[in-house]
Amino acid sequence: MHLTTWQELTRELQQPAIGKIVLFVADGLGGLPLEPGGKTELETARTPNLDALARRGVTGLSVPVGPGITPGSGPGHMALFGYDPVRNVIGRGVLEALGIDFPLEPADVAARGNFCTVDEHGRIVDRRAGRIPTEKCVELCRKLAENIRIPGVQLFVEPVREHRFVLVIRGAGLGDRVNDTDPQRTGVPPVRARGEDPMSQRTAEIVEQFVRQAAELLRDEHPANMLTLRGFSKRPNLPTMRDLYGLDAVALAVYPMYRGLARLVGMRIADAGKTLQDQIAALKREWEQGDFFFVHYKYTDSTGEDGNFAAKVEKIEEIDAVIPSIMALHPDVFIFTGDHSTPSLLKSHSWHPVPLLLVANTCRPDDVTEFGERACARGGLGQIPACHILPLALAHCGRLKKFGA
Amino acid sequence: MHLTTWQELTRELQQPAIGKIVLFVADGLGGLPLEPGGKTELETARTPNLDALARRGVTGLSVPVGPGITPGSGPGHMALFGYDPVRNVIGRGVLEALGIDFPLEPADVAARGNFCTVDEHGRIVDRRAGRIPTEKCVELCRKLAENIRIPGVQLFVEPVREHRFVLVIRGAGLGDRVNDTDPQRTGVPPVRARGEDPMSQRTAEIVEQFVRQAAELLRDEHPANMLTLRGFSKRPNLPTMRDLYGLDAVALAVYPMYRGLARLVGMRIADAGKTLQDQIAALKREWEQGDFFFVHYKYTDSTGEDGNFAAKVEKIEEIDAVIPSIMALHPDVFIFTGDHSTPSLLKSHSWHPVPLLLVANTCRPDDVTEFGERACARGGLGQIPACHILPLALAHCGRLKKFGA
Repeated sequence: MHLTTWQELTRELQQPAIGKIVLFVADGLGGLPLEPGGKTELETARTPNLDALARRGVTGLSVPVGPGITPGSGPGHMALFGYDPVRNVIGRGVLEALGIDFPLEPADVAARGNFCTVDEHGRIVDRRAGRIPTEKCVELCRKLAENIRIPGVQLFVEPVREHRFVLVIRGAGLGDRVNDTDPQRTGVPPVRARGEDPMSQRTAEIVEQFVRQAAELLRDEHPANMLTLRGFSKRPNLPTMRDLYGLDAVALAVYPMYRGLARLVGMRIADAGKTLQDQIAALKREWEQGDFFFVHYKYTDSTGEDGNFAAKVEKIEEIDAVIPSIMALHPDVFIFTGDHSTPSLLKSHSWHPVPLLLVANTCRPDDVTEFGERACARGGLGQIPACHILPLALAHCGRLKKFGA
Repeated sequence: MHLTTWQELTRELQQPAIGKIVLFVADGLGGLPLEPGGKTELETARTPNLDALARRGVTGLSVPVGPGITPGSGPGHMALFGYDPVRNVIGRGVLEALGIDFPLEPADVAARGNFCTVDEHGRIVDRRAGRIPTEKCVELCRKLAENIRIPGVQLFVEPVREHRFVLVIRGAGLGDRVNDTDPQRTGVPPVRARGEDPMSQRTAEIVEQFVRQAAELLRDEHPANMLTLRGFSKRPNLPTMRDLYGLDAVALAVYPMYRGLARLVGMRIADAGKTLQDQIAALKREWEQGDFFFVHYKYTDSTGEDGNFAAKVEKIEEIDAVIPSIMALHPDVFIFTGDHSTPSLLKSHSWHPVPLLLVANTCRPDDVTEFGERACARGGLGQIPACHILPLALAHCGRLKKFGA
C-alpha cells in the first residue's frame, strides 16, 4: 500500500457532503489520425452532447501513468480512482482472476496459466498449445482441479478462454515472490518455480508439486500436454475509496475485470447488465444508493485494438447519445475520460494523454467549444496526472475542507 | 523542516547578483464567473497596467498546494515563498499568534482560544459565547493573565477579536502534540487535554491546570463563562530565504498574519503603514535595503469572502493603479499572483489555480495580451506549482549558477 500525498490529504480533509460524482470511463478513448493532418476518432465522431458539455465545463488532458508510459487496464484505472499507478501494481495473476469474477481472498496467490505443447524432451514447441478451443480448456481445468491434491492448500483451476486459465492457491502463509515458469520462448522446458523468501519458497514448492501432477495428467493430451504459469500475485491491500475520500462508490461495469478493479478499491458492484443502455438504467436505479458512480465502457478500446477506426468512431457516437440521460440525473460533478489511449492506427494501448472533461457548477470554464484531443490540449485543466482527477472531483462537490489555517 | 528538491538545488547553485525581485500577492486573486459564460472578477476589472505587463511578460496559472486542495493563508504563502506547503504545516495556534504580532519564541507552544458558554452541567451551549465584544475579550484575557499562576511556565493570554484569544505557554521541554479541547459542537463539555508523548503530556497537564483555574475565574461571567483551546503548535524551524536563496527579503504587509508568515522564513519586516499607498511608499524607501520584496494586499480576499463581486473588481482596479509606481523602480523580476483563489461566487477560499504573471528582461513572452484566468490558462508558464515560482524568479535575476557541467 502506498498513498499519494493527495490521498493522505483527502483522507485528512474529507467532510460529509451530498454531492454526487459520475466518472464515465470510455476505455482507450484517446486516438490518433490515420494520416498526418487528419482527425482522430474522437474528432471525427459527431458528439453534440459532449461538445455542449465541453463548452459548459472545463477540459484538459489526463496523463494516465507518466511520460511515454503505455498503461495496461490495471494502472489506467488505479490512477483514475486516485491511486498511484506505479506504486500500487496489480499482478497479472490477480488481474486474470478479477477478469473471471473469481472471489479472491486476501491470502490467495493467483497466477495466469497457459496450456502449452512440449516435445518428447519436455521442451516447449507451442506456448499456446495451438490456441485450443475454450471448451477443451474447460475440460482440462476440470481434470486438473478434480485430480490434483496437495496437502495443506486448496487449489482452484479456472478456465479463461482458449489456452488461458487461472490458478489460485489458497492456504496460510503463502508468499507471491515466485518467478514465472513460462520462459516466454520455445525450444526450452518450463522454468522451475523458486521463491525469493521463505513464504514464497513454500508457494514455489506447492507450484512444483502442482506442475508435476499436472504434467502426469496431461501427458496423453494433444496438443495441450503441459502448462506454464506466470504473474504470481496476491491482491494488494488497498485502503478503500470510503476510507480515503469518504465516498460510497458504485461500479457499473459490464466486463468482469473492471468490476474486479473496482472491488479492489472497495466499490460496491451493481448489476449493470450487458449493454450501455443497461448500464444507464442501472445508474438511475442506483442513484440514491451512492455518492460516486464509475461507469465503464469497453468498446472504444476493443475497436481501437482491432484497428477499426470507423467502428471506434461509431462507439464514441453511441456513448454521446446516452450523455443526456446521465446529465438528466444532475450529477454535481461529471467526468468523462479514458483510462488510456488506444489509437486504431496502432491497434494497441498507447502512452498518449487522454481527453478529459469535467462539468460542475464550480468549474472555471475555458475557451474550448468541442471535445477532442486537439481542443482538450488547450483546455483550462492543462495536462494533469490521471490520479489528480479524483481530488478535483471531491473539491467540486464540497467534500474537502480547507487545508491549513 | 523539509526542503523541496528545488530548495536544495537553489541553495547549492545560488550566486551573488544585484537583481531585485518584487512578489506582489493579491490575496485570493483568482475568481469565478457569477454565471455560466460570464467573466471572473479579474476579467471584469479594467486593468490596463497589468494587461500591458501580460503582453510584455509571461503568464500562467499557479497551483497553490495541489489538485482540489483549498489552501489556508499559511500553506498559500509558504508555497509562494518556495517552501513545500504540505510538509511545512503551520499550526492554527502559531498562525493566530502571528496574526496579533506576538513575538513567538522557538520553544513556545501557542493555541487558539475561544471563550464559550457552558450550562450548569458544564456542557457547551454556545461555542462563541455570543461573540462577546472585543473590549470584553480584552478584559477577560487580562483577568486570566493576571490571576493564573502555574509553576515552571510563563503564560500569555492575548485577546484577538470578539470571543477569540491566543494562549502562549513559555517554558522548557514542552511538546505540542496535544488534542483540541474544543469538541467543535454543543451539548458536550470541553474535552480534556492529553499529550501524545511525554513532552506533550507535560504541556497537557499545564493546559488542564490553566483550564481549571480559568473556569473558576470565569464562573460568574456571562455569557463567557468557559473557554476552549485548539491548534496547539510551535513555530516550525524553517531555513531562511537568505540561507536557501541568498536573498535579503523584506515584507511589506499591512496585516499582522502575513508579517508573521514572512518572519517565519526570515524576512525583515518593514513598516508598511495602513494603505496600499503606504506600502508603495515603504517599498520605495526600502528599495536599496533588500533584494526581494513581498508586498501583500488583503482586500481581494476579504471582498471575495464577503461575496462582493463588484467590490473585488474595484480592489483589483485599485491595485492596477499602483503598478506603474512599482515598475518605476525597475525591478529585475516582477511577479504578480495570489496565494489562492477566493471566488466571490463561493464566498470562501477555493482550490482553483491562480493567475500568474512574471515580468523580466529574460522572460520568453507568450501570446497572452490580457491578465485574466482564461488568458493565463493559455500562458507560456503553463500550470505550475506555486513553489516553483521562486526558483524561476531567482533564475531571471541571475542568481542561479549552471547545474552540472
